[in-house]
Amino acid sequence: MQEIEKRFKTASQKYNSGLPHYHDCFELSKVCIHKLRADAGIKFYGYYNGAPRVGYHVAFLRDSVSRPFRKDIFIDDVGEFEVAHGKFIERLKHSDLASADDIVLANKVIYTSVMAFACCYDLWKNSSRKTPGTFFEILMAGLFQIFLPRANFSKHISLEAAIGENHIAGDDKEKVSISTDLVISTPDGQRTAVVPLKITTRERVVQPYAHQRILDSSFPDKYESFLACISETQLDRKTQSVKQVCVPGTIKLFQRFLGNLTGIYYCDVPQRYAANDLARYVPVKPLGAIFGDVKTTIYSR
Amino acid sequence: MQEIEKRFKTASQKYNSGLPHYHDCFELSKVCIHKLRADAGIKFYGYYNGAPRVGYHVAFLRDSVSRPFRKDIFIDDVGEFEVAHGKFIERLKHSDLASADDIVLANKVIYTSVMAFACCYDLWKNSSRKTPGTFFEILMAGLFQIFLPRANFSKHISLEAAIGENHIAGDDKEKVSISTDLVISTPDGQRTAVVPLKITTRERVVQPYAHQRILDSSFPDKYESFLACISETQLDRKTQSVKQVCVPGTIKLFQRFLGNLTGIYYCDVPQRYAANDLARYVPVKPLGAIFGDVKTTIYSR
Repeated sequence: MQEIEKRFKTASQKYNSGLPHYHDCFELSKVCIHKLRADAGIKFYGYYNGAPRVGYHVAFLRDSVSRPFRKDIFIDDVGEFEVAHGKFIERLKHSDLASADDIVLANKVIYTSVMAFACCYDLWKNSSRKTPGTFFEILMAGLFQIFLPRANFSKHISLEAAIGENHIAGDDKEKVSISTDLVISTPDGQRTAVVPLKITTRERVVQPYAHQRILDSSFPDKYESFLACISETQLDRKTQSVKQVCVPGTIKLFQRFLGNLTGIYYCDVPQRYAANDLARYVPVKPLGAIFGDVKTTIYSR
Repeated sequence: MQEIEKRFKTASQKYNSGLPHYHDCFELSKVCIHKLRADAGIKFYGYYNGAPRVGYHVAFLRDSVSRPFRKDIFIDDVGEFEVAHGKFIERLKHSDLASADDIVLANKVIYTSVMAFACCYDLWKNSSRKTPGTFFEILMAGLFQIFLPRANFSKHISLEAAIGENHIAGDDKEKVSISTDLVISTPDGQRTAVVPLKITTRERVVQPYAHQRILDSSFPDKYESFLACISETQLDRKTQSVKQVCVPGTIKLFQRFLGNLTGIYYCDVPQRYAANDLARYVPVKPLGAIFGDVKTTIYSR
């Protein structure tokens, strides 16, 4: 586990210094896949009782179990992962990543990378709750940098101009800005995609909506938000099953009264969010589709 | 600690069943004050280095320390607490609680009740992170029920009408509602105060703003929000001092572009929030002032 922590620290420091960091994320993912196979057990846990029902596995170590994951989109062999990953990066470099096959491939590779890392932290470093989310963030930033090499990337949107400079006391250490996880702009800065990244949203889904609202008020028609997630699953230990924790009513409410997200993306799309009634408010798609959608949006005008 | 947990469970069950529960909160506060004195040590921890600087104490047990609290507004003797509490309840029953003395008294009694409970959980039941927040919620609900006996109280605002009933799929278990901690209405239901309760806000300060925005869009001019907090303090173990974690720029931004809170209230008002530049956006006051302000607002029209 020390090697994983060390590699994560290196990748994260490079990312924060603006250095190329994606290769470190890739190597780290392989170490995690290998460690789960070598040092933990993997077993079937239970079903999400939807229509159709979906089976979930967990990694385990004596009495402790990891978060649940779908074995049909998780690549548990390092060699197979390398092959799939190689194909995915090729497509990322040379296409719009818009075909159904591209999207399935992107979904599997990202799901595997993030879940392998997260399950290792679940089993061997459970106190670091927020680290898997940070890994998801820097991994996606790296992939977008490969996909859109000419775009500008940042993590914040400054709003000092919006609030009026004379209202900012000089001794305020806090910068008035919106911390979104990933901000991708065209080179001319005219169109910008905001990509909040959350492994699961839960009650934090309000944040991207509030941010979009503020951005719309401050800079009309300049920003669009694409919320990127992995899944909304939770173990239900009492019934040995898996729940998908969804709040479609809240999302409709936010989408209608707070702000408009352009799309919500999941590797493991919750069935409740794939239903038609929600699509009338906001499209919910596989995460693999986010690359093409962001590109189309920021380069379309 | 078992007695505290049992009493908390009783108070909380009564509250959820709509039964009178305030007396249980009061008895529970006394048990907590007594337990801290009898079974823990209390010592000076360090200063918040503001202008003026403010000293903070902690309760401790071997190596573990509680959250920091201000001894000048914390009543550490059960007998003294009973006297102050008795006076406060008298004022609550028979006045508008608007004088400076009333506000100071209210602040002390509430601060002591919540902090005594929270420090006990910090030392003896650290895994239950959310329980002190729930205690704050039911305690304040009890006090408002004494203060405004003819008002209606609830915990949610239904928004099914706002979003259009035909958009709600029949099998949605989720109710479309805003869960604010405390909702206080005039008997005719025309004016309503929304009171979100948070011991500290941190990044969750976005929630009351998003809720106010949705309420304004759905029901113009009917709801006003009064955010009730205890403090924004945090131990800084490296420097053995206390920080006040504040985000004045973010609050200005939310207040300007998201929604309008009518007031923000603290037992231990953070110095940065008491500054004039923020007051131009939203009044930040001692928590003791919330009773009079809510009453004036909902009964004024």
